[in-house]
Amino acid sequence: MNADATPHVLYRHELEPRWRDLDAFNHVNNSNFLTYLEEARIQWFASLRKPWVTEAFAPLLAAVHINYKRPVPYPSRLAVELFAEKVGTTSVTLGHRITDAATGELHADGHVVMVWIDRASGKPVALPESIREFTEPPSGP
Amino acid sequence: MNADATPHVLYRHELEPRWRDLDAFNHVNNSNFLTYLEEARIQWFASLRKPWVTEAFAPLLAAVHINYKRPVPYPSRLAVELFAEKVGTTSVTLGHRITDAATGELHADGHVVMVWIDRASGKPVALPESIREFTEPPSGP
Amino acid sequence: MNADATPHVLYRHELEPRWRDLDAFNHVNNSNFLTYLEEARIQWFASLRKPWVTEAFAPLLAAVHINYKRPVPYPSRLAVELFAEKVGTTSVTLGHRITDAATGELHADGHVVMVWIDRASGKPVALPESIREFTEPPSGP
Amino acid sequence: MNADATPHVLYRHELEPRWRDLDAFNHVNNSNFLTYLEEARIQWFASLRKPWVTEAFAPLLAAVHINYKRPVPYPSRLAVELFAEKVGTTSVTLGHRITDAATGELHADGHVVMVWIDRASGKPVALPESIREFTEPPSGP
Repeated sequence: MNADATPHVLYRHELEPRWRDLDAFNHVNNSNFLTYLEEARIQWFASLRKPWVTEAFAPLLAAVHINYKRPVPYPSRLAVELFAEKVGTTSVTLGHRITDAATGELHADGHVVMVWIDRASGKPVALPESIREFTEPPSGP
Repeated sequence: MNADATPHVLYRHELEPRWRDLDAFNHVNNSNFLTYLEEARIQWFASLRKPWVTEAFAPLLAAVHINYKRPVPYPSRLAVELFAEKVGTTSVTLGHRITDAATGELHADGHVVMVWIDRASGKPVALPESIREFTEPPSGP
Repeated sequence: MNADATPHVLYRHELEPRWRDLDAFNHVNNSNFLTYLEEARIQWFASLRKPWVTEAFAPLLAAVHINYKRPVPYPSRLAVELFAEKVGTTSVTLGHRITDAATGELHADGHVVMVWIDRASGKPVALPESIREFTEPPSGP
Repeated sequence: MNADATPHVLYRHELEPRWRDLDAFNHVNNSNFLTYLEEARIQWFASLRKPWVTEAFAPLLAAVHINYKRPVPYPSRLAVELFAEKVGTTSVTLGHRITDAATGELHADGHVVMVWIDRASGKPVALPESIREFTEPPSGP
């Protein structure tokens, strides 16, 4: 990633893998990367201090892409960073990077596409205001 | 997916989500889809009856892409189907589909890129013979 | 366990461990036994075809005891059996056994204590009728 | 627990539940308590800086008992404390308490029985020196 092109970090969350995240190959299992990303997203949503899940609507993952670059050791401390890659009317594409919290070494990158749905109908609804506000680039000069 | 273009199914594995796979939104959590795909791959590897993991080498996920099409209900019975999308020297791209085992309704599709690594050095090695044999298209007349 | 003393089996559920249930010691992890027991309980509750969780009340584990007798291999097929050990006004003690579904070899036994709580107050409530009916021994001649 | 009777804390580990630890009842699932306890044990073993798992031997859970006292909220920060309750030749009974890291409020207590086994034969072996040293009470005056 070109430093000049590095998008603005929306949120950075640090967490520690658990021994149980290791699988029989003694690696942090590939599915746990999704859990680490989810944890960062949820903590980010909560940090916005505006509704992101209600009786009426809830977020849903529409797609995920992860490039596994380097196995995650145990014990370790990771940083999960989220970026706004694309903001639409009913969906947002969040880039992500999982790095070693101390060295910045890259373990994985990629992105997810999120939508918000009406919990009764299951249909997509407009992005919550809080998500739109924080992911949209500031308007020009 | 055009029926004409449907690739050959390498393996089909049926499994049942567990109640614990549900998250606080009462949906099967997005990370479990990776576990279902992994289960199908491991059962497929085992079915080949040739070495796919040894003291010397082991498979590793290089990338994953999942499109979440429809939430998975609990209880339910799923079918995970694997396809060979691309076979390289040191990597194989496996397409996947997760459907309702009875109705065929699509819950998710996508693909993974797998490599095999030397467990000591962490470097990629040639695909195991068993994987190459079963994923390569038969040569023509 | 003396055959004469074997309590009545309330429910028997068969399930298959997943590769992801293995931990870095290449054993099915101890925490998964709780998930297997939970799966059997949930399937049992559902089989009673009367409310066991509503807007008003929900089950909660008050205590668990597991004796790990023999590691669970992968792949394998397990049977989880549930027994009524003690039925109180607001709690029920369910015995459990996890065995190999084919050979009957014992992997784990023990029991859980379950209560039902008022979801608003968090206070214990009387056992749902369906649970009481099915766990109480039939009255004598 | 009477303060006078409080046994010596062998190890105290703090950790944060993840959103994925919640289940469909919006509670931290009962099985995750085992994962939290395991994490504290593993970190404790590692802190002893003497072998606790080798090619020859590995620890195994023989039994677990947990009393669930109070649901764990998300987000939260927990403290897991381990105590030596009983030290035998081939087994050790470790008491445990899971509390709120800030307030000390009790979420769960209980104990586990651990053994070390010969990895080849599966038979119990003598406790590793490091475990015996740290769990045995200091000899008299």
